[in-house]
Amino acid sequence: MSAGITEAELRELDARDPLASARSLFEVPEGMIYLDGNSLGAMPRAAPERLQALTREQWGVDLNSCWSGRGWLDLPITVGDKIARLIGAAPGEVVAGDSTSVNLFKLLCAAADLRPGRRTILTEDRNFPSDLYIAQGIERFVAGGLRVKLVPREELVGAIDDDTAVVMLTHVDFRSGYLHDMAEIGRSAAERGALVLWDLSHSAGIYPLDVNGCGVDLAVGCGYKYFNGGPGAPAYLFVARRHQDAMHQPLCGWLGHAQPFQFATEYRPAAGIVRMICGTPSVLGLATLDVGVDLLLGHDMAEMRRKSVALTGAFIGLVQQMCEGAGFELRSPADAARRGSQVSLAHPRAERLIAALAERRVIGDFRSPDILRFGFAPLYVRYLDIWDAVLTLKAAVDSA
Amino acid sequence: MSAGITEAELRELDARDPLASARSLFEVPEGMIYLDGNSLGAMPRAAPERLQALTREQWGVDLNSCWSGRGWLDLPITVGDKIARLIGAAPGEVVAGDSTSVNLFKLLCAAADLRPGRRTILTEDRNFPSDLYIAQGIERFVAGGLRVKLVPREELVGAIDDDTAVVMLTHVDFRSGYLHDMAEIGRSAAERGALVLWDLSHSAGIYPLDVNGCGVDLAVGCGYKYFNGGPGAPAYLFVARRHQDAMHQPLCGWLGHAQPFQFATEYRPAAGIVRMICGTPSVLGLATLDVGVDLLLGHDMAEMRRKSVALTGAFIGLVQQMCEGAGFELRSPADAARRGSQVSLAHPRAERLIAALAERRVIGDFRSPDILRFGFAPLYVRYLDIWDAVLTLKAAVDSA
Repeated sequence: MSAGITEAELRELDARDPLASARSLFEVPEGMIYLDGNSLGAMPRAAPERLQALTREQWGVDLNSCWSGRGWLDLPITVGDKIARLIGAAPGEVVAGDSTSVNLFKLLCAAADLRPGRRTILTEDRNFPSDLYIAQGIERFVAGGLRVKLVPREELVGAIDDDTAVVMLTHVDFRSGYLHDMAEIGRSAAERGALVLWDLSHSAGIYPLDVNGCGVDLAVGCGYKYFNGGPGAPAYLFVARRHQDAMHQPLCGWLGHAQPFQFATEYRPAAGIVRMICGTPSVLGLATLDVGVDLLLGHDMAEMRRKSVALTGAFIGLVQQMCEGAGFELRSPADAARRGSQVSLAHPRAERLIAALAERRVIGDFRSPDILRFGFAPLYVRYLDIWDAVLTLKAAVDSA
Repeated sequence: MSAGITEAELRELDARDPLASARSLFEVPEGMIYLDGNSLGAMPRAAPERLQALTREQWGVDLNSCWSGRGWLDLPITVGDKIARLIGAAPGEVVAGDSTSVNLFKLLCAAADLRPGRRTILTEDRNFPSDLYIAQGIERFVAGGLRVKLVPREELVGAIDDDTAVVMLTHVDFRSGYLHDMAEIGRSAAERGALVLWDLSHSAGIYPLDVNGCGVDLAVGCGYKYFNGGPGAPAYLFVARRHQDAMHQPLCGWLGHAQPFQFATEYRPAAGIVRMICGTPSVLGLATLDVGVDLLLGHDMAEMRRKSVALTGAFIGLVQQMCEGAGFELRSPADAARRGSQVSLAHPRAERLIAALAERRVIGDFRSPDILRFGFAPLYVRYLDIWDAVLTLKAAVDSA
C-alpha cells in the first residue's frame, strides 16, 4: 500500500483544482459528503432567490402579463437553447419541459412516424427501466404494430437491421456507470437507416457531449440530476434540425401549434422544434432549471470531465486500497473512457451499507439487489471527500 | 336606469361578504382589478414562503432523502386527495402532475382501451382547442383507428351512439363561459355505454363539483387557473374507482409501476390511481399547487358559487346599464345556472379595448376574433371591483 493514494495527495489536488470555487455556488450541508448528484443534484445557492424574484416580483406583481412580458412563454426555448450548448446541439434543437418519460414517448412515436416501414424499437436489456416501460406503453397503444426488442449490450450493434426504426439507449448505464460509444453506435445505426435516440440523463452536465458531431437524431434528458435543476425539474428533448420539419408527435398540445392564440379547431404544428412542446410550461420548474444550467455554462465542461475521471479513479483506487477483502466488487468499467461520473460496487449487504453510510452523512444510493452507487458531481465534490467517503465505507463494512 | 345597480349597493355587498377576508390571503397588486383568474390565478401570499421552505429547509438540507422523508414522492397523491375534495371525488381517485394535455392524452387512450369495440371520441366543435389537438394526435397515432367527431353543442347528446368510446367535454366553455349540465350528459352517455371525460379547468375551484354524483368516469383539470397553483402548475386527473383496475394508459413511466424501486425490466402497473402517474413528480410545482388548493379548501365552495353568480350577474347588469349602445354583445349565458364564473362580451374592437383596459389596470383577456373575456375569482374579486371595472370599460369604449 506504500504506493497508494494518500490524504495529502488529495488535499493537494483540491488546492490545485480549477473548479474548486464552484462548490461555494451550491448549498452542500456542512459535514455531508453527497455522492448522489446523479439522483438529485445539490441546490444552487441562487435557486431560492430566483424563486423569490419569480413569485414576489413577477407572479405577484404582473400576473398574467408575465407570459409575454417576463418571457415565461419562451422558457422552453430559452432554457432549451442553453441546454443545447451543454450537449453539442445548435439553437433551436432543444426544448425544455415535461418529464423525461413524456419526452421519450413523444420522440419514440415521432421516430416511428419518420420510419414508417420499420417496426422495431431496439434497446439493451439493461436500459433504464422507465425508458423500457415507456417503450412498452407504445408497443401496446401505438398504431402500426411497433415492438420493443431487448438485446444484451454486446449484441446491440449486430441487432440493428432493416426493421429497426430507432435504437434507444441511455448514454450512461444507471446501474454500472458504463458509458456507451455514442459515435460508433450512431454510425452503425445510420448505415442501416435506423434513427438513434439517446437518454442523456446520466451524462449531460458531466461529460462533453457532442450530439451533432456523433450523428445523434434524437435525445432526451433529465433536469434534476447533474443539471441541478431541482426536485422533479422539467426535462428536455433534442431533435436534430434535419428531422424537424418532417416530424410529428402525438402529444400535440396548444403550445406546439403554429398559432396557439388563434384557438383554431385544427392542429397545425409550429415550424421547427416548437412543435415538440405540448401544454403550458411549468414556469417555476423551468426558472429553477435555468439557474442550474447557467451554473454549468459558467464552467468548462472538459475540465469537469477531467475532474470527474480523477474523482471516480481515486474512489476506485481507494476502495481497492482500504477495503481489500471486505467483499466489494467493482461493477463500473475500470477503463475511465468507458465510465460516467459514477462508481458502482456490488456487495451482499449493499442496502444495509448504504443506510450505515447515510447515518455517517455519506450519501450514496442503493440499487437492488446488491449495488452501492456513488455519483461524483465535479462542481461540488472535493478530492478530499473521496478519502473521507472511503474511510467511512471501510468503517461501515467493518462494523456491519 | 333609476332601478339599476348602484355603487353603494356593491359596497354594501362587500361589507356583508362572508368571503371578504379571503382577499388578504392573496397578493393582488394595489390599484389592479384582476379579472383574469381563469387564465392565471393570483398568487397566494403563502406561496413564496412555501417555496423558501422547500428549497432552503428541504432540498438544500436533506437533498435526496426528502423524496421519502419529506413526502416529495407522495405529492401527486397527497395533493390529488385534496383536489378530490374540491371536485366531489373520493381519496385515491385523483393524482396531480403533468399538464392538462398530457393527462388528457393518458385518459383518452385509457378510455379507448376500456371500450375496445368503439372507435369514436365525441366532442363539441367549441371545445377548448388544446383538448381537440390532443384528440387529433390520438387519431393519428393510436392503435385501433380512433376518430374524433366534432358536433355542435345542440347535437351532442343525440350523437352519442354505439360507436362512442368516450364523450370528451370541457365543463365551462373557455370562450363563452357556458356551463354544461354534467349530470344530464353523464346519464345520456351511460345509457349508451359510452364513457364521459370532463375537462374541469374552468369550473373546479369556483363551482361545487360532484363528479361521483354526476356519474363522471374520467376528468382532467388545470392547476394554475382558479386553483391559484402558479404559472404552469401541475394539472390533475380523476378516474372513478370502478374503472381503475381495468385501466391501462400508454404513458407508463416508472412511478406508475407497482414496484418502481425494484427496477424490473417489465412494466407492471401499480394498483389503483397510482398507475396513472408517469415520471418523477415536479416537486416545486406540486408544493405551490398545494398552497392554492389548501386555500380553496379553507372556504365554503357553495358560498364561492353564490358570490361568483352575484359577481357575474352584477357585471352583466352594469354593462347593460352603463354601456348601452356602445356595441357590446353578451356572449355568456344570461341564465346564471348555465354560466361559469366568467362573462364574455363581443365587440368589434375587442382586442384594442382589452389593451386599453390593461393600461387602466383592469385585466381581462382577449380571445380571437372579437371576445373580451372576464373571469371572477370569488376569493379575491370584490363587488366594488365590478363597478370600477365597468366604469373603466365605459371610459375605454368612449375614448377608443
